[in-house]
Amino acid sequence: MSQYIAPIRDMQFVMRELAGLDAVAALPGCEEVSADLVDAILEEAGKFAGGVLAPLNWSGDQEGAKWNNGEVTTASGWKEAYNQFAESGWTALACDPQYGGQGLPKLISTAVMEMWKSANMAFSLCPMLTTGAIEALMLRGTDEQKDMYLPKMVSGEWTGTMNLTEPQAGSDLAAVRTRAEPVGDGTYRIFGQKIFITYGEHDLTDNIIHLVLARLPDAPEGVKGISLFVVPKFLLNADGTPGARNDVHCVSIEHKLGIHASPTAVLAFGDHGGAIGTLVGEPNRGLEYMFIMMNEARFAVGMEGLALSERAYQHALQYAKDRIQGTELGVRGGPKVNILHHPDVRRMLMSMRSQTEAMRALAYVVGAATDMAHLHPDDAVRARNQAFVDLMIPVVKGWCTENSVDIASTGVQVHGGMGFIEETGAAQHLRDARITPIYEGTTAIQANDLIGRKIAREGGATIKAVIAEMRAVLAEVGGVQDEAFAAIARSLDSGIKALEEGAEYIVATYGQDIKAAHVGSVPFLRLFGIVAGGWQMARAALIARQRLGEGGGDEVFYRSKIVSARFYADHVLPQAPGLAYTVVNGAAGALALSEEQF
Amino acid sequence: MSQYIAPIRDMQFVMRELAGLDAVAALPGCEEVSADLVDAILEEAGKFAGGVLAPLNWSGDQEGAKWNNGEVTTASGWKEAYNQFAESGWTALACDPQYGGQGLPKLISTAVMEMWKSANMAFSLCPMLTTGAIEALMLRGTDEQKDMYLPKMVSGEWTGTMNLTEPQAGSDLAAVRTRAEPVGDGTYRIFGQKIFITYGEHDLTDNIIHLVLARLPDAPEGVKGISLFVVPKFLLNADGTPGARNDVHCVSIEHKLGIHASPTAVLAFGDHGGAIGTLVGEPNRGLEYMFIMMNEARFAVGMEGLALSERAYQHALQYAKDRIQGTELGVRGGPKVNILHHPDVRRMLMSMRSQTEAMRALAYVVGAATDMAHLHPDDAVRARNQAFVDLMIPVVKGWCTENSVDIASTGVQVHGGMGFIEETGAAQHLRDARITPIYEGTTAIQANDLIGRKIAREGGATIKAVIAEMRAVLAEVGGVQDEAFAAIARSLDSGIKALEEGAEYIVATYGQDIKAAHVGSVPFLRLFGIVAGGWQMARAALIARQRLGEGGGDEVFYRSKIVSARFYADHVLPQAPGLAYTVVNGAAGALALSEEQF
Repeated sequence: MSQYIAPIRDMQFVMRELAGLDAVAALPGCEEVSADLVDAILEEAGKFAGGVLAPLNWSGDQEGAKWNNGEVTTASGWKEAYNQFAESGWTALACDPQYGGQGLPKLISTAVMEMWKSANMAFSLCPMLTTGAIEALMLRGTDEQKDMYLPKMVSGEWTGTMNLTEPQAGSDLAAVRTRAEPVGDGTYRIFGQKIFITYGEHDLTDNIIHLVLARLPDAPEGVKGISLFVVPKFLLNADGTPGARNDVHCVSIEHKLGIHASPTAVLAFGDHGGAIGTLVGEPNRGLEYMFIMMNEARFAVGMEGLALSERAYQHALQYAKDRIQGTELGVRGGPKVNILHHPDVRRMLMSMRSQTEAMRALAYVVGAATDMAHLHPDDAVRARNQAFVDLMIPVVKGWCTENSVDIASTGVQVHGGMGFIEETGAAQHLRDARITPIYEGTTAIQANDLIGRKIAREGGATIKAVIAEMRAVLAEVGGVQDEAFAAIARSLDSGIKALEEGAEYIVATYGQDIKAAHVGSVPFLRLFGIVAGGWQMARAALIARQRLGEGGGDEVFYRSKIVSARFYADHVLPQAPGLAYTVVNGAAGALALSEEQF
Repeated sequence: MSQYIAPIRDMQFVMRELAGLDAVAALPGCEEVSADLVDAILEEAGKFAGGVLAPLNWSGDQEGAKWNNGEVTTASGWKEAYNQFAESGWTALACDPQYGGQGLPKLISTAVMEMWKSANMAFSLCPMLTTGAIEALMLRGTDEQKDMYLPKMVSGEWTGTMNLTEPQAGSDLAAVRTRAEPVGDGTYRIFGQKIFITYGEHDLTDNIIHLVLARLPDAPEGVKGISLFVVPKFLLNADGTPGARNDVHCVSIEHKLGIHASPTAVLAFGDHGGAIGTLVGEPNRGLEYMFIMMNEARFAVGMEGLALSERAYQHALQYAKDRIQGTELGVRGGPKVNILHHPDVRRMLMSMRSQTEAMRALAYVVGAATDMAHLHPDDAVRARNQAFVDLMIPVVKGWCTENSVDIASTGVQVHGGMGFIEETGAAQHLRDARITPIYEGTTAIQANDLIGRKIAREGGATIKAVIAEMRAVLAEVGGVQDEAFAAIARSLDSGIKALEEGAEYIVATYGQDIKAAHVGSVPFLRLFGIVAGGWQMARAALIARQRLGEGGGDEVFYRSKIVSARFYADHVLPQAPGLAYTVVNGAAGALALSEEQF
């Protein structure tokens, strides 16, 4: 079983020096935010994550959630941990103060969220889904709905779920069939089956508030005929307490590769007369509402990629320090050493570490931009940041989650044979990570969004602006007389050129040959992530160099950061030109076979 | 649950047209081999693999092997399948006719082995380990040992195991501590604990023959003090039947990420007075014998990488054909289509397919070279082939197994959310594949072997010869006036240059800065595998083109082969230059941190 120690120093560095915590703190509504407050929050969250959640991660995986006759029992210790989580106010961190939230900026909740997900991803899904449901109600709920549900959801007394998927409607939500029939009193009876509902049933709280996509009678076909409903597990009494059991029942939970402790429910609505729900917002606009919230959810899943990578790195590093095997390379008859001495173990650990740092840097920068996009008084600044966030969300989601599978797999490899033994715990990270490139939109869905809505639709305007920012950083790096910085400049230069080549191809091809553009979409997303990560690591190296020159201390941290940036430049960024080649040239071979030739 | 249909057409193509089945059939001792015989074997093996072994793959995974008080029960159906396997003569395929084997060449047993491993990897490990033990006894056993054990091992009546690893001795076998004390009558008493013993205990046969590494009293420290012993589970009666229980007991079996149906035993030798064994070969040369056999074992694990990739591909392809989701890209309001229509699903499937074909081509070519190295009458031809085989074994092992993890993971991705559900079976391939880059020497161990013993030690002589062969193929491809061949030539050209650059760096650096060379070793192995796969796919494309020109039929197959080669050139080979960059430039960043900075 592995420990988790929140990487607070790196989080502070990224928040303060890369993501602009000061600028976020200067936003309207963020007056209370200060470096001290942030440090206090990180420290408390780190204690909770490492002390309460992390110890339940492996036992929760082994025990799993259990279904029995419609009821779901969470793993041992889960309920106590959840109660403590809610009582400590962690559910309310980023929520609106009007409903009991603390209203802290996204940048801070991002760092805290990373900790929950590193410590115990299966646990973290419960508050994450609740946040999604809270946002849906905040966005389009009536005042009555808000008053009924939000205070108890923000406090963690109740949890929330998102009910989108049906057996025939996964990536294609146009195929949703669940029906909603108006009762006549403002409520609706919901009939249908939803699958893959995270924490769709559990024993942590005495009510669960389901947000459900369904079709009204005579709704148009396809995506424009889907409405959003709120359907509580227990209908509310007049005093707001849970009353009669609603007709939504958990038929089964899934037997999954990972996140065993997170119950993934099949929910049957209306098998006994209809589940009572109320409409959220206007009819037939449910999918539109979902899309507005989707950025948040996709960002959060991207954070899972980062968080699992951090956890897998810590786990592998600890093993590498403890495991004695072989002697130092090139030393005959020397003493046995720990495997951290072996060059390939080093390479693996540096690969895990540098990519994790790059993902954190990029994700937090996007988190801070979200705050700017929401809160900055200047319209132009808000718009610019929103465009950046919109562009980067599919990259954060797709790149960080795909990376996490590779990084967790590398973590298994560092353990050698022990990595394959479940008790070691390294394999759990790989099993848990494997869902992240799938849910909240597969990597292909992210890549479609990236090249279509986020790039081609605006002729590549925002990505061109981002590339210009990258070039400015490159110019600065190129001006430093130092071997490491020269290496960073060399790889970043070819990386940026590759990204630009790929982006130009996407813009030019999307309207002409959409299938060809789509063949390149996932390689392009990966290319974008790699180069964006290199950009942020180059920024980090420049800042580290400046701090070292100032002589303000923390030398070990800043020197390590430059090493990490250099490793990334030598081992990760060099993949960029090959990916650009594939983006530009890969369509013909991918599309040539007829279905019969497969 | 997925079906497995042996890819007999591609196997035939690779054996006949790439690996030189005719030349193998012309070798002394292979007089009976003919294309018809091979076809008959492939067909029978394919029936057995698809009809008997494949249906047990998923149920075996779910049920697993069970330990109870020292006894291990295999999963339901296992024993019947094993009996049928042995009765059908499959255990004896490649064995020496002197002991009941069929003495078929490696090229044929390679194809058959691929089928067992695709159909049911956990099952296939039992005959695979037995083959290893048979080879150890063939190699250095006394006539008495051979007569006692080999006929029943070849017939499958008994199985064999290899006992190397101990808790403190994994990659570093110099640390083996198991002791062997001479009794005085020619036997030894063995004391110690061995871990990770595949099929170290089971209920399939009435004896198990353990090959065990142990130290004699006063043996030198380190690798030169390790001897090899044969230790049967049941001592033999005078008539050769199993008699008294020997003092080797299964203390537990591991709870693993994958290959659940393959019992991985902890074996205690000598807890009750000593396990009786006899010495194999000379004292203190056990590790040397192991290394001689290791090529075979490593090749076999490389085949697991290929085999699991094939299985994952078939599984994902079937799902993609069956799963209806969304409409054709660029067609508004069109009918729902299967996901094979979506460009990124195409890309994923082609990536799985083209890499699997490339691995098969390379592995079978190495298999045929093994036959040439063993059987060709001309010393120079034998030596040349042996050098090629020695060079390529770590590539086949390292590259195919690392690929299989990625490919099985891509298979999960093709399934979307269903891929994460265990009942789908796609996740099992990923879980099973994850052991392959670890056992029989991790990828780092393969890469060390590759750059040290196989390249630097001889100044790169063999790899230079291989690169020259690649260049000859490139020249031929470059001469074809065709868009697909032009694309293949372009990527193969830069791939070969990258490989040469990497090889020159290894040769130049290994003696000067061994740690730097080792940092690049795994990226170099991957680079070598990618380019060697591209080389074989280019050969395949040239042959396919020739056959199409001849008009002899089989057009769909040959046209698909050219598409596959082209896809590989556009999507896989472009990774080569980036890997070469990392090989050459990656050391400084990887080695810069002190242990305290981690």
